[in-house]
Amino acid sequence: MKNILLDQIDSKEEEYVRKKICSMCRNFYRLGWVSGTGGGISIRRNQIVFMAPSGVQKEKIQPKDIFILDLEGNILKYPENQALKLTECAPLFFSAYELRDAGAVLHSHSSNVVLLTFLANKKHSNYDFIYEYHFTRLEMLKGIQGHGYLDTFVLPIIENTPKECDLTESLRIAIQEYPKSPAVAVKDHGIYVWGKNEDHAKTQAECIDYICEIEVKKRMIGL
Amino acid sequence: MKNILLDQIDSKEEEYVRKKICSMCRNFYRLGWVSGTGGGISIRRNQIVFMAPSGVQKEKIQPKDIFILDLEGNILKYPENQALKLTECAPLFFSAYELRDAGAVLHSHSSNVVLLTFLANKKHSNYDFIYEYHFTRLEMLKGIQGHGYLDTFVLPIIENTPKECDLTESLRIAIQEYPKSPAVAVKDHGIYVWGKNEDHAKTQAECIDYICEIEVKKRMIGL
Amino acid sequence: MKNILLDQIDSKEEEYVRKKICSMCRNFYRLGWVSGTGGGISIRRNQIVFMAPSGVQKEKIQPKDIFILDLEGNILKYPENQALKLTECAPLFFSAYELRDAGAVLHSHSSNVVLLTFLANKKHSNYDFIYEYHFTRLEMLKGIQGHGYLDTFVLPIIENTPKECDLTESLRIAIQEYPKSPAVAVKDHGIYVWGKNEDHAKTQAECIDYICEIEVKKRMIGL
Amino acid sequence: MKNILLDQIDSKEEEYVRKKICSMCRNFYRLGWVSGTGGGISIRRNQIVFMAPSGVQKEKIQPKDIFILDLEGNILKYPENQALKLTECAPLFFSAYELRDAGAVLHSHSSNVVLLTFLANKKHSNYDFIYEYHFTRLEMLKGIQGHGYLDTFVLPIIENTPKECDLTESLRIAIQEYPKSPAVAVKDHGIYVWGKNEDHAKTQAECIDYICEIEVKKRMIGL
Repeated sequence: MKNILLDQIDSKEEEYVRKKICSMCRNFYRLGWVSGTGGGISIRRNQIVFMAPSGVQKEKIQPKDIFILDLEGNILKYPENQALKLTECAPLFFSAYELRDAGAVLHSHSSNVVLLTFLANKKHSNYDFIYEYHFTRLEMLKGIQGHGYLDTFVLPIIENTPKECDLTESLRIAIQEYPKSPAVAVKDHGIYVWGKNEDHAKTQAECIDYICEIEVKKRMIGL
Repeated sequence: MKNILLDQIDSKEEEYVRKKICSMCRNFYRLGWVSGTGGGISIRRNQIVFMAPSGVQKEKIQPKDIFILDLEGNILKYPENQALKLTECAPLFFSAYELRDAGAVLHSHSSNVVLLTFLANKKHSNYDFIYEYHFTRLEMLKGIQGHGYLDTFVLPIIENTPKECDLTESLRIAIQEYPKSPAVAVKDHGIYVWGKNEDHAKTQAECIDYICEIEVKKRMIGL
Repeated sequence: MKNILLDQIDSKEEEYVRKKICSMCRNFYRLGWVSGTGGGISIRRNQIVFMAPSGVQKEKIQPKDIFILDLEGNILKYPENQALKLTECAPLFFSAYELRDAGAVLHSHSSNVVLLTFLANKKHSNYDFIYEYHFTRLEMLKGIQGHGYLDTFVLPIIENTPKECDLTESLRIAIQEYPKSPAVAVKDHGIYVWGKNEDHAKTQAECIDYICEIEVKKRMIGL
Repeated sequence: MKNILLDQIDSKEEEYVRKKICSMCRNFYRLGWVSGTGGGISIRRNQIVFMAPSGVQKEKIQPKDIFILDLEGNILKYPENQALKLTECAPLFFSAYELRDAGAVLHSHSSNVVLLTFLANKKHSNYDFIYEYHFTRLEMLKGIQGHGYLDTFVLPIIENTPKECDLTESLRIAIQEYPKSPAVAVKDHGIYVWGKNEDHAKTQAECIDYICEIEVKKRMIGL
């Protein structure tokens, strides 16, 4: 079973994805999205999922440190270093793969997003663990799939939980309740963002981070 | 016709400009001016115009990804990768080439500029889609062509539109109404800045970005 | 005596640690933690302690500039450049080695932390030179050893002194009074952070810096 | 005459200083101190003065772009590129060489410093073009020559002038009136900082920039 799936990806492509995760992590560290050991990246190729390890400095990970899984979450290939652990975010990443057919999922602890989550007070009418922040009239909204300058982009923000895996249920509900959003933020925590592939996920994440920065700084200048 | 124009530029110079656009994009990414897929750069050599492609990560573009056009906007050379698209900003870039004889035009989504556009409330007396922000008594004004420390630099700010190409008309009016400004900002969006050549455009853009940062932070400290 | 201790570490490992201190210093400079000649790093291997020199630009130090000491603070190896001086922080670093069995200690002048020290007004009930700042409900608390999202992380903040070595007594008291904190901040000054090893100390430091940034920016937006 | 002075410096040392100016400029660009074409650096070796050219992007200058002058301001060696111009700051740099026996002088347009100049309202009792900002109780004051944690560092801030060379007279007065300050700030403009040599000047500049940042951000959080 494992061999069949791994045959889907040639060794050159596997190496490409492994290196891509590492270079994206270095960039996200520079952006302040994955300081400490926070944040994470997962990339999918067909039914093969690549995932950065947990609890380590993200800017330091090497191609050989990546987990490879199938879409049920079974580990097909372990990192060389057996001390490395799969992230608790795994079920969250898989939710975006399953419910949105995502090609990549990013998890950032960006301070811009976390500060934005403090500003949301509107709640979903049926689910009181979901807050909303409404963005409109920003050019960068065009960078968020399906949105234009005059549209309102509604970012769902779910309550945080002590254990990251316990976010799964509410994340799945938010994904389903907000089909137009390529992201779910988590209060006091960060954001999960996905896209058709890793480049698309990155540009979605950058656009959302940017509009959060704008809203937060608007507050700082009293607007 | 096309060949005649392309003969104007030797292959070494063409390669130089292609690489220059790429290195400037990497720098602007680092500055936060072109996150997501936003922003753009165009450089002119005589009647030949080079333009970065649209809808892609600007820090990743390669010399072979650049469009080459004539001054009427006809594409003389396509990028190797046929999936790349010409930017919707093209008519905006051409406005600065035509009306100001610019040698390069930059388009940035800098958060400093966008926040500044929120602070402008003075309107042009005849055109209600043009706002103004008046800067004075800042040394960096000297870096903006034709201005000194005690001068007032009036930055025109036009209303944004859902489609970027629809900015063309109001941008052209602003360019003509504000002959002393090497830039037109766009509310909720960013800025177009030009100069005699790419280095001059960059220094104009940096000076304007800096004075916007100062004005925005002055508000943050309650001045 | 000296030779016996130095035999504990092979030359390859010694070279590794020397280089690691230099690369960490370059990173901390980029983060703004060690501008001027501020801040410092010390790494321990068994009974051998490596320490960056004092009063120099931290981003410029070279492997040959590192001091090696035993746990009593005796210098076992001097830097090649005899003008280099041991840091006044040495007794502070040794306090974390002795009282917490730390494997590495970092000292940062991060502006996020210094601004946070201005916000603390709660005092220790018995020691009036110790202030406290209480953090809770932030995901990044999970990155601080022994803490979870709903826990309260109490950061002790001691009064600063004109001479750095005079901090030793109050630092030692704070270390003992706050056994759950991997760090002691110093008002108007910065922070000492330690961990099991240099990577752990760095991730502790980044998590604490991040939560300080969040608290400071919350104030900037009026929350 | 020129040859005699140039003989003071061997070609290896000359090359070192030329490269040092370039690498410092790149670092200062990254710090935001010399955006646009602002700011500058000058280094002295005995009676030989090296100076970055004016009106160019500082992060792009090359070793061959540097001017070499004697202490009277006579140019001993021009840059290869004859279009490069000597900076209008030259008389300002020479003031620090003459009055303080400085080994290097830096000129930065840092936004932290410019914002700080807006906060100064105390004036010199005899010279109404000199403002003062008083800093105290910050550890980083120790990095400013002759100051300790509990000392008050008085930064003189002079009024800006339309022409940079017209600053010379008031800068010289400020240098003489504030013998304990290794820097004079200029309102709406930036700062001149000097030191025994280029490294010392840089650490002085970083410490002052840092304490300005702290004071400005204190205001942003309402302290």
